Amino acid sequence: MLAEAVAIESVSGDPSKRSQTIEMVHWIKERLEELGARCTLEHLGNQTTDGKQIALPPALLGQLGDDKKKKTVLVYGHLDVQPAAKEDGWNTEPFVLTEIDNKLFGRGASDDKGPVLCWIHAVEMLHKHKVEIPINIKFCFEAMEESGSVGLEEMLEKNKNKFLSDVDFTCISDSYWLGKTKPCLTHGLRGICSFKVEVTGIQQDLHSGVYGGIIHEPLADLLWVMSQLTSVDNRILIPGIYDDLAPMTNEESALYDKIDFNVQEFCESIGAKKLPTEDKKTLLVRRWREPCLSIHGIEGAFSGAGEKTVIPSRVVGKFSIRIVPNMEPGKVNEMVLDFLNEVWKTRGSPNTFRPQVGHHALPWVADTSNENFNAGARAMKLVHGVDPDYIREGCSIPITLTFQELTGRSVLLLPLGAADDMAHSQNEKINKVNYLNGVKTLLSYLLELRKV
Amino acid sequence: MLAEAVAIESVSGDPSKRSQTIEMVHWIKERLEELGARCTLEHLGNQTTDGKQIALPPALLGQLGDDKKKKTVLVYGHLDVQPAAKEDGWNTEPFVLTEIDNKLFGRGASDDKGPVLCWIHAVEMLHKHKVEIPINIKFCFEAMEESGSVGLEEMLEKNKNKFLSDVDFTCISDSYWLGKTKPCLTHGLRGICSFKVEVTGIQQDLHSGVYGGIIHEPLADLLWVMSQLTSVDNRILIPGIYDDLAPMTNEESALYDKIDFNVQEFCESIGAKKLPTEDKKTLLVRRWREPCLSIHGIEGAFSGAGEKTVIPSRVVGKFSIRIVPNMEPGKVNEMVLDFLNEVWKTRGSPNTFRPQVGHHALPWVADTSNENFNAGARAMKLVHGVDPDYIREGCSIPITLTFQELTGRSVLLLPLGAADDMAHSQNEKINKVNYLNGVKTLLSYLLELRKV
Repeated sequence: MLAEAVAIESVSGDPSKRSQTIEMVHWIKERLEELGARCTLEHLGNQTTDGKQIALPPALLGQLGDDKKKKTVLVYGHLDVQPAAKEDGWNTEPFVLTEIDNKLFGRGASDDKGPVLCWIHAVEMLHKHKVEIPINIKFCFEAMEESGSVGLEEMLEKNKNKFLSDVDFTCISDSYWLGKTKPCLTHGLRGICSFKVEVTGIQQDLHSGVYGGIIHEPLADLLWVMSQLTSVDNRILIPGIYDDLAPMTNEESALYDKIDFNVQEFCESIGAKKLPTEDKKTLLVRRWREPCLSIHGIEGAFSGAGEKTVIPSRVVGKFSIRIVPNMEPGKVNEMVLDFLNEVWKTRGSPNTFRPQVGHHALPWVADTSNENFNAGARAMKLVHGVDPDYIREGCSIPITLTFQELTGRSVLLLPLGAADDMAHSQNEKINKVNYLNGVKTLLSYLLELRKV
Repeated sequence: MLAEAVAIESVSGDPSKRSQTIEMVHWIKERLEELGARCTLEHLGNQTTDGKQIALPPALLGQLGDDKKKKTVLVYGHLDVQPAAKEDGWNTEPFVLTEIDNKLFGRGASDDKGPVLCWIHAVEMLHKHKVEIPINIKFCFEAMEESGSVGLEEMLEKNKNKFLSDVDFTCISDSYWLGKTKPCLTHGLRGICSFKVEVTGIQQDLHSGVYGGIIHEPLADLLWVMSQLTSVDNRILIPGIYDDLAPMTNEESALYDKIDFNVQEFCESIGAKKLPTEDKKTLLVRRWREPCLSIHGIEGAFSGAGEKTVIPSRVVGKFSIRIVPNMEPGKVNEMVLDFLNEVWKTRGSPNTFRPQVGHHALPWVADTSNENFNAGARAMKLVHGVDPDYIREGCSIPITLTFQELTGRSVLLLPLGAADDMAHSQNEKINKVNYLNGVKTLLSYLLELRKV
């Protein structure tokens, strides 16, 4: 089944693959209906891309069981994937699930088709063994998560007093363990503020031989500006950016000491020679509860292999800042724009400078002392024999906060994949053991919720 | 005929267009044979691209007339073009010659298919009017010029004592006027040294949410290093780089005063708000006889539209320095590598830094007091009614020096197109009047050589 799902190239960011992305929603709908779930497709309207309107893939709302005496759990997952091509450095065909050394390689294997199928297999197992499901299950699966979940939040808001009105717990399996072997529960995520910086100065790209030396080159300006943003060890140089960080309580501080994490192993696993810090706690704090700034690339400059002796006319730098409590996106955006404009003034270039604010998402930190987290922890213990670590994540899953606010109830992030699953990267995989234990974990979680 | 030539998509840098590039050579061979020229195709072997071997397009050597009592002129041109796509910002289909306001738009219209066809039309006219051509004409046309003229120099060296042995003059029409209306002869070109700077630090691209803040990001290192190369007004910050410049003689200095060039018009024509200098002479000196450094782009970073929250693992910055007499490529390369390594040391990053030297070409400055230049000047005067300016060019045409050295005789650069023809850029065109006057100029040049 995972091979079938991976073979559907549901790349939401690629308009040419929109029909496969829509197909993937229908495919999952059939699987859920086979389990007895009632499903509806929620049409989310159109999207404008390259000046053209194309249909958004629908979101799927499903319901299995409608017993007013039972509690209700909402399961969220996404059916779309990041782009992938063999040429990017994959060892196998990215859309052909390939087993090597008990690992299942394929785009979406871990992010997030594998975990979505774990839910389906968990229910299948309960059916097969004629175990009554002790809780009503609602499903919300979307296919635009990798492209900003366009349309989802609006649709969910409209369902606040309908589909979402009786949800008692939400569970999301769309993140990763901290390491390769120990399970964990996730109770925090960073938010994000993204930015573009455009520099233009000449009408069109020019020949660097003919015009070199007598132009204020936009790309040189842009590189200089972006080089002012961070220090070598990725500390952000924007004044005030660290001022609003939530103070760490003793209780929170103590949590870090218990966490199973080996800095040296982590360093080796990503192939780095040295990290900015070798202290476990400092590293995790920087990763989870401090902002960071990453420069992603430049649009408009020459990016191919080989040489092209061009002076690019319009270049756009892309960077983003991950934000944490209690940073506010509005204030962060203002701080960044002010800083960029101040720095630009000192450059003395006649070129046109246009910093722009992109999308943002809020950070999320949840209380873990509730039945939802407790059920997750007991399920993990049952399957893995150890208590899970309570961790946070550096990345952003904006819909987490939306579910929490719209249902007014606990959202649990229950990761199934290992830290080295390489979501968003080349050679994404899910370990076979994680996939199988994932089914068991979700099944146990459903049964544990009975005890509430 | 120009429309037919432009329609052949002879993009030498694109391996998928290799068959069209080869087709273009055959197409020109037929045109030359129709004029009575004897032609041979010189096979230049293979090229390795993306790990595959593909055939290089052959070069064409042709000969029209073989009268031992006559002098011999060698004509060089190239049949390949830069890439072009409507999406890049062309107003018309780049491979469909389109006339708008007496301008002929199309890739290659001016660089260099138009000028090559001017030679063919010039000979046609002489044939049509039964004028005896007073000189033997040899043709050397290649189809790899936009990709470093791979294989050409070697082939020419082998022909030093054969095809090239009796060449008295060489003429190349592959550059541009200084302005839009006044003709000129070109007697100098800058050379080039090109560089790549690679920074790597992690095994593969990483998710900026999950890993941001605890990595020495290779792209941040690269931007910082490249921001150290130039000042805002494009002065090179590498110590010693201006030390070897040939001193300017009074005679050379006086040449600049005569040249017809309007800085304000030039500034407007490229859409710049302000140039680093507003003084005509300073600007031309920087453009023609001083080095400059242009950053072309970055390979390996995100370069698409939209957002991708990635930490690129391996980024390669590309830049080049145009060199002038008496700079030596070997010394320039050493200076640049030393500077980069010194700057890198002060960065304090554990990432791997690998600056690399790319291809280079020597600058060229020619004596203009000879019969070749005089014939060119008289031809220009006949057609345009004014004496041409004697200019230099900021760009590099390495084959110029090769012809000069292998024949031991004068090489004349006789530009036909206007300054705003936008070679290498979007909306390349040749003015209809330049195309027609181009035919007349080359025809007159051939007739003027008779007087030698």
